[in-house]
This record gives sequence, C-alpha cells and structure tokens, in this order.
Amino acid sequence: MKTIAEYSADVESAIRSLEFPGGNLESLYGPIAYGLSAGGKRLRPVILLMGADAFGEAAGKALTPAVGIETFHNFTLLHDDVMDRSDVRRGRPTVHKKYGENAAILSGDTMLTLATEYVTDVDDDKLRKVLKTFDDMAIKVYEGQALDMDFETSDKTSLPEYMQMIEGKTGSLLGASAKIGAIIGGAGEKDADLMYDFGMAIGVAFQIQDDWLDTFGDPTTFGKPIGGDILNSKKTYLYLSGISEHPDYADALRAAMNMAPGESKIKTVTRLYEKLGIKESAAKAVAHYSSKAMTSLKKTSLGDEEKEAFKKLAEKLIGRKK
Amino acid sequence: MKTIAEYSADVESAIRSLEFPGGNLESLYGPIAYGLSAGGKRLRPVILLMGADAFGEAAGKALTPAVGIETFHNFTLLHDDVMDRSDVRRGRPTVHKKYGENAAILSGDTMLTLATEYVTDVDDDKLRKVLKTFDDMAIKVYEGQALDMDFETSDKTSLPEYMQMIEGKTGSLLGASAKIGAIIGGAGEKDADLMYDFGMAIGVAFQIQDDWLDTFGDPTTFGKPIGGDILNSKKTYLYLSGISEHPDYADALRAAMNMAPGESKIKTVTRLYEKLGIKESAAKAVAHYSSKAMTSLKKTSLGDEEKEAFKKLAEKLIGRKK
Repeated sequence: MKTIAEYSADVESAIRSLEFPGGNLESLYGPIAYGLSAGGKRLRPVILLMGADAFGEAAGKALTPAVGIETFHNFTLLHDDVMDRSDVRRGRPTVHKKYGENAAILSGDTMLTLATEYVTDVDDDKLRKVLKTFDDMAIKVYEGQALDMDFETSDKTSLPEYMQMIEGKTGSLLGASAKIGAIIGGAGEKDADLMYDFGMAIGVAFQIQDDWLDTFGDPTTFGKPIGGDILNSKKTYLYLSGISEHPDYADALRAAMNMAPGESKIKTVTRLYEKLGIKESAAKAVAHYSSKAMTSLKKTSLGDEEKEAFKKLAEKLIGRKK
Repeated sequence: MKTIAEYSADVESAIRSLEFPGGNLESLYGPIAYGLSAGGKRLRPVILLMGADAFGEAAGKALTPAVGIETFHNFTLLHDDVMDRSDVRRGRPTVHKKYGENAAILSGDTMLTLATEYVTDVDDDKLRKVLKTFDDMAIKVYEGQALDMDFETSDKTSLPEYMQMIEGKTGSLLGASAKIGAIIGGAGEKDADLMYDFGMAIGVAFQIQDDWLDTFGDPTTFGKPIGGDILNSKKTYLYLSGISEHPDYADALRAAMNMAPGESKIKTVTRLYEKLGIKESAAKAVAHYSSKAMTSLKKTSLGDEEKEAFKKLAEKLIGRKK
C-alpha cells in the first residue's frame, strides 16, 4: 500500500485532470471546477483508495470512484454554504459568493449527478452494490443536514438526535467511502460492512472530538478561536450530553447558554461543563468510538500491514492536537 | 396497451402510496411529498410506462422507474422555482414559498437521489444502460437550464443555442423517459435509441409550439395571457429565428423588443413577426419536429397498435388548441 500522502496526491492530480465542456457552458462548469480546486485533505477519496488497495490492489481501478466521492462531498459543502449563507471556505470566497446563488444551486445539482457517474465507474458485477451504498449514504447525509438545520430553531434537540445527525452528516460518508473502496477491491459482504462500520465510527469520533476541541482545545493549534460553539449557542455533544446526563443541571446549562455572547458566557458554560465532568465524559466518548472503529477493523480479514495503515489513518484523524 | 388516462392514473396512485420516513424528518420529507402531490399530466412517466408495455408488456415492472422520472422532473421544477423566485406553481405556493428556501434546496437534492434509486429499480442486466441514460439526461437538463439562465443576461443568444437549450431542458427528459421504458420492456439498442429520438423531437416540437402559442394562440384556450413572452423580452424561437433569418430586420426586432412593456409593445413585435412570415415558419418548425418524431417511431420494430398509441400521445401533446 501507498502512504496517505501518496494517495492524496493521486486524488489531487486526478481532480486536476478532470475535463468539463467549455464553450457556452462556463457558467455551469466554472463553479464546479472552482469548488473542486479548493484542496483539503481529500480524506474520503483516500479512504476509498486505501480500501481498494487493501482488499485487492485495485486503487488504480478506484481512482474515478474516489474522485466521485470527493465530488459528492464538495457538492454538499457547496449547497450547505448556500443554506448557511457562508461567505468564506478555505480562505476563498464560497461558490455562491463568487458566482451567485443560482449558479451555486445548479452547479451543485450537476456535481451530484457527476458524482454518481464517477462513483459507478466500476465493473458491472459491482455496480449494484456500489450504487446502493452511494445512494443510501447520500440520503443519510441529507437527513443529517436536515436535523442540523432543525437544531438551530428547536429547543427540544436530544442527544440521540444529535448522534443521528453526526452519523448522517459525517459518519455515513466516511463509512460509504471505506465500503465502496472495499467492494471495488473485491471484499466480501462481511468485510465491506465492517469497513463501513470502521469509517462510520471514525466519523463519529472525529465529530465529537471537534466539539471537544472547540471548547477545550489548545488555541495555538486548533485553528479557530476557542469557544465559538458556545458563543453561537450551538447544540454540541458537550451541551446535549450535559442536558441528558445531568437533568438537575439542565436549567443551569440552558440559562448559561442563553447568556449574551461574550467572554463571560464562554467562561460560565465551560466551568459548568468542567464541574459536571463533561470534559472527561466527552473525551471518553471519543475514545469509545475510536476503539469501536478499531474493533471493526480487527474483525476484517485484512492482513496486519493493511490494518496498520487504516489504524494510522484513524490516529492521524482523531489523535489531533488537543 | 392501456390508455393514456389509465397509465396516468397508475402513476398517480403509485406516487400517492410512496412512503417517506416520518418522525423527526418531516422538515426534509414534507416538502418532497408536497412537491410530488401537485398533480399535472404525469407525461414523462406515462411515456416510460408506454415504452415498457409496447416493447415487452412490462409496465408493471416499470412503475417505480416511472415514479423516479417524475421525481426527477419535480426536483428540477423545485430548484428552478428557487432560481426563478417563482411563488406559484399549479395554483399553489411553490415549495420554497411554503417551506423556505433552505428546505427547498435540501429536499430537491434528496429528490434527485431518490429519483436515481427509483429509476434504477430494474433487473440487473438493464441497470447499466438505464443508469447511463438517466445520468446523461440529467446533465443535459442542467446544461439547458444554465443556458436558459445565461439567455436572460446575454444579448448574443443565437438560434443554435436556443435549440441546445430546449433539447436539454425539455427534449432530453422526454427522450430518456421513452428510452428507459423501452429498455425495461426489453428493446434492443436500435429501438431504444429510436424511442429516445422520438421523445426528443416531440419535446422540441412542444417547446417551439409553446413559444408560438404565447404570441399567436387563442386567449380563450391558451390558459395564460397572450404576449407574456414579448412583455418579458424573452428570447423565444420566434424572436431568435427572426434575428437569424432576417438580418435586415434584426435591428428593428431588437428595438421593438426594447420597448417599454405594454399593449403597444405586444402589437409592434407581433406585427413584425407576421410581416416577416415568422408565424408561418415557426408553425412549420413545429410540423417539422413532429414529423421527425413520427419518422423515428416508424423506424422502430413496434407493431401498428403500439405505433398508433405513441402517435396519439404525440398528437395530444402537440396538436394542442391553437
């Protein structure tokens, strides 16, 4: 198997060599090329390529499907940015900011169909399984995004709904990437499902850790200002597990979260979290899902070298700077 | 074969019995059910069912794919309405008007994936062909919509671009519906392609006729006020064929189209069209594409009864009240 950096470079160069119609259709394909050129870790296609290589040295065959998974991911970012009215992504204007909202909607739609085309560029005997994995995943992502939007206006959000949301928005896409790679590599159904579980658990661990870092992270390495979620009264894993596991303090948590945005709000909420032991329990949840991922990985029929490669990827992703 | 009304009723009842997750996901699936319940002719799924029955008495097997084609069509209407800021469709508030723009974007995305799932609910040996026909069609529809949006701001729109636009937005969906039905019915490649050509030509004829009716139709039967396209300075077949076929009058046409909206503008442009013989030449274009559709139909290996059924459908669609 190659290194993560090598797989990532393969994806990057495949994306750079994509060709779209020119002529009178720049208004449709310009925004797509722009969206796809933003770079990033290319994590999802890397997992797909690793799956294909691990099970059948088939990363060469899996390159177009890998680009498809990244195209799907970028389509969701593009439409999410429209819905969130976000103006900046990766230091550049978002697609709708640069090309207008209508172009962003239509180019996003086009990316979803292109993603389907790319992902299903597999041998005929694998087409049904790959297509079903892809479509099922897409539905879960939309459901996760719908819940996420509902959370903003609802004050009845529960921890199970939060878990459903991050499983949909983050877990299912990582799971499907790993599974589609495995299928292309020739994995049997059991192995393919275990790889899905592996990716899903990594995604969930990553998302809870992201919530943890936003409050308890090291400001010099986190990349964003600490406390942003608290300032925005976001319903995070920290907040919702606090409400559900400490009913006696639910009102205090709600009151703290209703404070006016500012340093004092960040301090008050953070101290409550610490007092209730949420700092530790959330870190435990990250460890729990990480170890769940490892358990799934171990159960596969992969050899030690392949297992080690996936373990490294998980550590790289979840063992982030705290 | 059944009658058009019977196929349409089959589609309607299949759509009514669709089941979506309830629970906490009403915000996602409510808009979808609402969009799909608007009714209408269900023309595209009817053509698909007819194709399946004509080639293999397979309409029963084709019902889910037919619902998929209608779901795709409704997805495009939903996102088009967001992009056009249209508030009313079929006498009801549009989806984004009723549920908000974000719900409309996300529910539309979900409909595209659901459409892909439904359309590909076919035997494995037909999956690749059906999926490719569907994806290729979808890309043509987006390209058509992109051109349509470009036309609003460009003053260099040409007749070939207009033809590319209506072939994409209207023709390709009718063509793909007929072709997918034929494939499900067991048609060979040649027959399937001829059915695509049949649907494509019907779509183009329909669209040019729609432009014709908007200026020269009978106000008592057209359903919309006559002259709307002229009032809105829309680049129609009438206008663009006038510009390209009568270069000496291009400036006069442009000047007339730049008049302030009102009865006088409608009269001036309409008289110019009549003077230049565009009323007749556009009617001839409709007849040309209708007869092109019939030529494709005749070339298929279908029996007389089946050919007659498709001919009736085409007449119902294009032989509209003038």
